[in-house]
Amino acid sequence: MQDSTRLALSGERLTATYHLRASAAEAEAEARARAICVEQTVEFPPELIAEVAIHDQVIGEVRALRALAPGRFELVVAYPVEAAGAELTQLINLLFGNISIQPGVRLVDLELPPGLAAGYRGPRFGREGLRACCGDPARPLLCTALKPMGRSPAELAELAYRLARGGIDLIKDDHGLTDQSFCRFEPRVRLCAEAVARANRECGGHTRYLPNVTAPAGELRARARLARAAGAGGLLVCPGLVGFDAMRALADDDALGLPILAHPAFQGAHCASPDGGLAHAVLYGLFNRLAGADATIFPSWGGRFAYTAEECRALVAGASRPFAGLRPILPVPAGGMRLDRVGELLEFYGRDAILLIGGDLHRGDLSANCARFVAAATA
Amino acid sequence: MQDSTRLALSGERLTATYHLRASAAEAEAEARARAICVEQTVEFPPELIAEVAIHDQVIGEVRALRALAPGRFELVVAYPVEAAGAELTQLINLLFGNISIQPGVRLVDLELPPGLAAGYRGPRFGREGLRACCGDPARPLLCTALKPMGRSPAELAELAYRLARGGIDLIKDDHGLTDQSFCRFEPRVRLCAEAVARANRECGGHTRYLPNVTAPAGELRARARLARAAGAGGLLVCPGLVGFDAMRALADDDALGLPILAHPAFQGAHCASPDGGLAHAVLYGLFNRLAGADATIFPSWGGRFAYTAEECRALVAGASRPFAGLRPILPVPAGGMRLDRVGELLEFYGRDAILLIGGDLHRGDLSANCARFVAAATA
Repeated sequence: MQDSTRLALSGERLTATYHLRASAAEAEAEARARAICVEQTVEFPPELIAEVAIHDQVIGEVRALRALAPGRFELVVAYPVEAAGAELTQLINLLFGNISIQPGVRLVDLELPPGLAAGYRGPRFGREGLRACCGDPARPLLCTALKPMGRSPAELAELAYRLARGGIDLIKDDHGLTDQSFCRFEPRVRLCAEAVARANRECGGHTRYLPNVTAPAGELRARARLARAAGAGGLLVCPGLVGFDAMRALADDDALGLPILAHPAFQGAHCASPDGGLAHAVLYGLFNRLAGADATIFPSWGGRFAYTAEECRALVAGASRPFAGLRPILPVPAGGMRLDRVGELLEFYGRDAILLIGGDLHRGDLSANCARFVAAATA
Repeated sequence: MQDSTRLALSGERLTATYHLRASAAEAEAEARARAICVEQTVEFPPELIAEVAIHDQVIGEVRALRALAPGRFELVVAYPVEAAGAELTQLINLLFGNISIQPGVRLVDLELPPGLAAGYRGPRFGREGLRACCGDPARPLLCTALKPMGRSPAELAELAYRLARGGIDLIKDDHGLTDQSFCRFEPRVRLCAEAVARANRECGGHTRYLPNVTAPAGELRARARLARAAGAGGLLVCPGLVGFDAMRALADDDALGLPILAHPAFQGAHCASPDGGLAHAVLYGLFNRLAGADATIFPSWGGRFAYTAEECRALVAGASRPFAGLRPILPVPAGGMRLDRVGELLEFYGRDAILLIGGDLHRGDLSANCARFVAAATA
């Protein structure tokens, strides 16, 4: 049997980049950096570890540490790929499990070497695939949500029909619609999928209906399969509620083969502090790509949430930059977007985005507003 | 078929208490309060909802709003139980899904009415049950972790044997041990469970071994069952990595019937800001109880993390106060606790706690340190 004095790991390393808050003293930053390397791997006083192999091969290694500003440092840690195993849950734990609880450390970037990256299929469709699903129009894709909560399946289906006739590419359930007594999952999904299919037949459209399959652990897969069988064209998933790996399992399920929109419910705290948690690019971009989302919904600047334009720009970079050989995904600016802002959204996000407008489509005539939405996005 | 003009919900409501940051103007706080009621339910401009029934029965209702301090308010919102469905994922979404992304709103408490609470079994063992599992000693329970990462299953099993002989009640895997190539889950769990059983036979002890079953969505249940079959006496789960509901599913699995320790990896951001996210009592106490944990590990004041004594006290209240008819659970202060602090931990947390000491047990003679740990906790 192996023993830990003779570990023989591959030497392959993944790297995590953190921003650290520390007093301006270089020594304090160095001590914090080394403490992070220990905390995220052996979580054990290093002076009590006799095995040289564990020091050399298991404990994270400080690759770089440099001052960004007084009291702020950038730290790059290299971790052995074997510590991450072949599991997204453990990869996230390795990158930011315990240190999520420590103040003043933020995960701002990561890189996976090919051997580790090969374990993640990532987005099945990605940016180009999802655009192709929608007929690859020469404009951003357009999305809206079925709501409000309280409407019946038949009423939501009628709404879905009108939105599909209006030329919306992606019609998702509101993420608050699950399987409530007043709007059961099965009839909602069946009726809405039928309504969208009817609209597509009538006008030759490519509209896809994406039900919300966020559900208890034991029911997620069944709901997704039921959605597929009912004719859904994609899935809405809240990884903050079900866990990133549960979303990955849906993305990797060949029997489903449906594009996935990730919704950020219950994930807000991760990005709330500028010097703790996760950078927007990591949470919305890199983690969602590892977990197989094809598009990432986020509250855009200028809506009823609070992200800045700079944060949104960084997020888009996380969704689209080369990363672990995974497909880029589409950013979905949302959260109180309005028809009269489509022009500036288009200018900011460009064609490779999904513009999501909810309530504002319902001010006045829905069909006319859909036509305005399409026209503004095509401009 | 039902229609939304004739919703007939039960009128039963759950309540959520939030702390809000707002300008001192009462009107701004009232507007924020109403916006939260809308955001968390219909997520739709209320003036565009024609159905009186949705206004009356679906949209959250402000039950109370009062100033706590200049610019800080306490808000109580009542939500219809039907909006939460019968799903922990949706209950959490209803309480704090979208507003997790808004700055300046913190979920500090919740109450479920009996009809909704009846849908949650909660902790299978709870405080008294878990104590009984360990022979109900007249002292806090004692816990430690198998580490460091890099040791082989046989080495960890040898360590588990010595710790069990030393009288530690609960021996858990380090939460970074999953199913890595250098320490596979199956042999680790088998050998460690055997080692603890052998120690128990030799000295008549009640020590339990709790492997870390945090795993990809499709493997969690299988690992837990494998652990049970191998003789594990409980499970360690990181709900921040697998989702709260996945932990609940393990707790509710009658074929397992094992106590669960919840570990806070990747949950730190939820409590990081004093005026956003979740109160410690909610995250570590109420949510873990809804999700079936029997004990809640957290970084205690005075360790290498940053919670204050006041936060720890509030957390213990959330773990133990009457809530939804669910069993109280044991707080597990951890995160760099030391033998020389057992006295003050005992004084602070009392007998109804699990004291977790990791690395410090290994400074010098392990057996002597275990004896010191038992003696100090018994004092």
